[in-house]
Amino acid sequence: MDSRLTELVGLLPDHSVLTEPDMTAGYRQDWAKDPSAGTPLAVVRATCTEDVQATLRWASTHRVPVVPRGAGSGLSGGATAVDGGIVLTTERMRAITVDPVTHTAVVQPGLLNAEVKAAVAEHGLWYPPDPSSFEICSIGGNIATNAGGLCCVKYGVTTDYVLGMQVVLADGTAVRLGGPRLKDVAGLSLTKLFVGSEGTLGVVTEVTLRLIPAQSACATLVATFDSLADATGAVLGITQKMRPAMLEFMDHTSIGAVEDATRMGLDRSAQAMLIARSDAPGEHAGHEILEMGDICRSNNATEVFSTDDVDEGEAFCAARRMAFDAVGRLGSLLLEDVGAPLTQLPALVDGIAQIAERRDVTIAVVAHAGDGNTHPLIVFDPDDAELTERAHLAFGEVMDLAITLGGTITGEHGVGRLKKAWLPDYLGPDVLELNRRIKAALDPEGILNPGAVL
Amino acid sequence: MDSRLTELVGLLPDHSVLTEPDMTAGYRQDWAKDPSAGTPLAVVRATCTEDVQATLRWASTHRVPVVPRGAGSGLSGGATAVDGGIVLTTERMRAITVDPVTHTAVVQPGLLNAEVKAAVAEHGLWYPPDPSSFEICSIGGNIATNAGGLCCVKYGVTTDYVLGMQVVLADGTAVRLGGPRLKDVAGLSLTKLFVGSEGTLGVVTEVTLRLIPAQSACATLVATFDSLADATGAVLGITQKMRPAMLEFMDHTSIGAVEDATRMGLDRSAQAMLIARSDAPGEHAGHEILEMGDICRSNNATEVFSTDDVDEGEAFCAARRMAFDAVGRLGSLLLEDVGAPLTQLPALVDGIAQIAERRDVTIAVVAHAGDGNTHPLIVFDPDDAELTERAHLAFGEVMDLAITLGGTITGEHGVGRLKKAWLPDYLGPDVLELNRRIKAALDPEGILNPGAVL
Repeated sequence: MDSRLTELVGLLPDHSVLTEPDMTAGYRQDWAKDPSAGTPLAVVRATCTEDVQATLRWASTHRVPVVPRGAGSGLSGGATAVDGGIVLTTERMRAITVDPVTHTAVVQPGLLNAEVKAAVAEHGLWYPPDPSSFEICSIGGNIATNAGGLCCVKYGVTTDYVLGMQVVLADGTAVRLGGPRLKDVAGLSLTKLFVGSEGTLGVVTEVTLRLIPAQSACATLVATFDSLADATGAVLGITQKMRPAMLEFMDHTSIGAVEDATRMGLDRSAQAMLIARSDAPGEHAGHEILEMGDICRSNNATEVFSTDDVDEGEAFCAARRMAFDAVGRLGSLLLEDVGAPLTQLPALVDGIAQIAERRDVTIAVVAHAGDGNTHPLIVFDPDDAELTERAHLAFGEVMDLAITLGGTITGEHGVGRLKKAWLPDYLGPDVLELNRRIKAALDPEGILNPGAVL
Repeated sequence: MDSRLTELVGLLPDHSVLTEPDMTAGYRQDWAKDPSAGTPLAVVRATCTEDVQATLRWASTHRVPVVPRGAGSGLSGGATAVDGGIVLTTERMRAITVDPVTHTAVVQPGLLNAEVKAAVAEHGLWYPPDPSSFEICSIGGNIATNAGGLCCVKYGVTTDYVLGMQVVLADGTAVRLGGPRLKDVAGLSLTKLFVGSEGTLGVVTEVTLRLIPAQSACATLVATFDSLADATGAVLGITQKMRPAMLEFMDHTSIGAVEDATRMGLDRSAQAMLIARSDAPGEHAGHEILEMGDICRSNNATEVFSTDDVDEGEAFCAARRMAFDAVGRLGSLLLEDVGAPLTQLPALVDGIAQIAERRDVTIAVVAHAGDGNTHPLIVFDPDDAELTERAHLAFGEVMDLAITLGGTITGEHGVGRLKKAWLPDYLGPDVLELNRRIKAALDPEGILNPGAVL
């Protein structure tokens, strides 16, 4: 064994370092399945902050690249292994302490989002951010990508719930930032800087989350439309009038794919479907749903259905959340998460349809419509080189379109490695340079997640 | 005139540069009245982003320090002029555009917080952050200090409402960060880094704010207590059960001072008073207020009063907001804004009383009790050197106490110059070094607000 590796093994608890190729293979890629993934020197399965410190001190000394990894459910290749580097996974760091008085939880990064929700629910509390992958994604990965989800239209994104953290810097120094306090302006807002930094600035080993009281029972509305424009028109009508607890969009292709998978009776003939929820207290939820229904009808909805049965409503949300998997049965996918200012949502959805037609590829679209964040899913067959090329062209054109409309190339998945080529266009040279200066200030040797984002 | 100054005057619109001492005198200090304020070379009254760029380009070339200034209502000396430097005020940059569909407003920094609230209210929207000084403080200053206020216990602080900005860097480069999108993870979270940076990293010339639908009418509760411990006990009881829209605390001294000023009939014999609000929709506000009343009674409240009359409720809030002014009639003030995790609020309030007794100084305490942020107001007489010294000792001891309790030296006012000496103790050497590295990366010449924060 490489003498550097022998040294690393000696620094860490037994069985923390995997080096056998059959053991490390599962850590080479995340869900983006980046084909250019490298072969790591080793995988470190940290058990505590000190393990992370020892690994980064060692990596700094030997200038070995380190790719931090949560649950590996990332969709942009942010946790893709690099040749000769270390994959540092926090999957074994899973402690949580909930404080019901301060409405905070102190959580290690390896706990899954769903596990955080369950633990705080025991105290009548709620951790809102809810990526569709909430049952399999880790809170550490959520911090790294500033994860969003379905409830963000009303409740905001991950960064809005991060009050503090412990983070290990590139040289192995562990620092504590912020804490269980809603207000703290002593020094620069470093806590927020680390949220969404995709493992390029440090490795978060503990996070202090802000919680809120448990959500009221939701009432749910489902509406179908004969045209994309009617559906997006209804979205703008609803958001202008109120703040729904959820406002999701599915297009014809994704409706069909989900119906194939579930046989739950969705209207396959619809061009678009909206699923909206209200969690206003008591009968106010019903009032909001009624008003949403009126707005959908005045935007030519073909059918409007509503329910205050929580399980029935949840079935529609589950249908929406399974869209990635369902569309995935149509072929391999290139996953986008472009966003636009809400007023540009109709132009974005329409433009994506035009790209699909021009490139002759299937692009299913699901969207967190209420916050302007869309998920075009480009279907291709990796064995068809010509189709694959057209799919990749469409992938870039969708991001170009978002930039043109004043939108973003990634709303919640992160830049990772797959969207990196479009980041300079999105940020422009001055902001890119600003990103580089911060990166250089915090990771001067460039050992943290090299090749990701910047 | 200094040839550098002649050059600066030539770069800017007529009447933008003040150099006469009687014109610049009013820009030497903010409300902290820092006696060590310097005499600026000139005051630049910028009218647009290009003016700010020209000023910073010139300042970088000549290595002249620049102190950015909003409305000058800061309480920590963050806008204290330095000898031979420029004070760069954004008070003339006052445009606002509200987009009712995306629920955002694009605002120039010189607009007052109250003016932002009024402009968006015309569209049925609300900008929540509400520092007590909201009628006289500017949105630019709010961004610079990540300002808080009374509603933060439920609605969060300034940074939670900042989606994007245009900011001019030390070298005069203007960059746009973020935009009118709730979700955007393309590149590092630089927007959030600039919020709360107190003019040390750049000058914000435009900000994109997130708005929410107008708040429901509030119901209000006022409760008095015979002891500090009963009052803080009630605070913990309330926050554990629900999320009030406001939960404020006043101690005996501040109640008396406000009653002196208003003659509104507050109970001067009370040791503490809580003012709480609920903005739950419809009759749910009344239910929450009833529950809060029960919690106060079970914590030995001597009197509990509630009202759903909005004006009557607002009168109590106004009483709380005027506490700084009212206590200020007792003498000169040293203003604190230490915070603690909520569970430590009783220990913080009690410890402050002990410091007051030990140092034989009057310390009035008002607090945003629901979020653990307190405002001890230390009364002194600048003509009494011995008392002044004791007051300054108490000022430091209150911050030391907050640090001991796991709290912060400043929750919402900023470090500025007055609390700078305590920042190293609060942050510790590693986080302080991290702050310095970020500062050096963005302002390598150190021309932006030198002497503030770091």
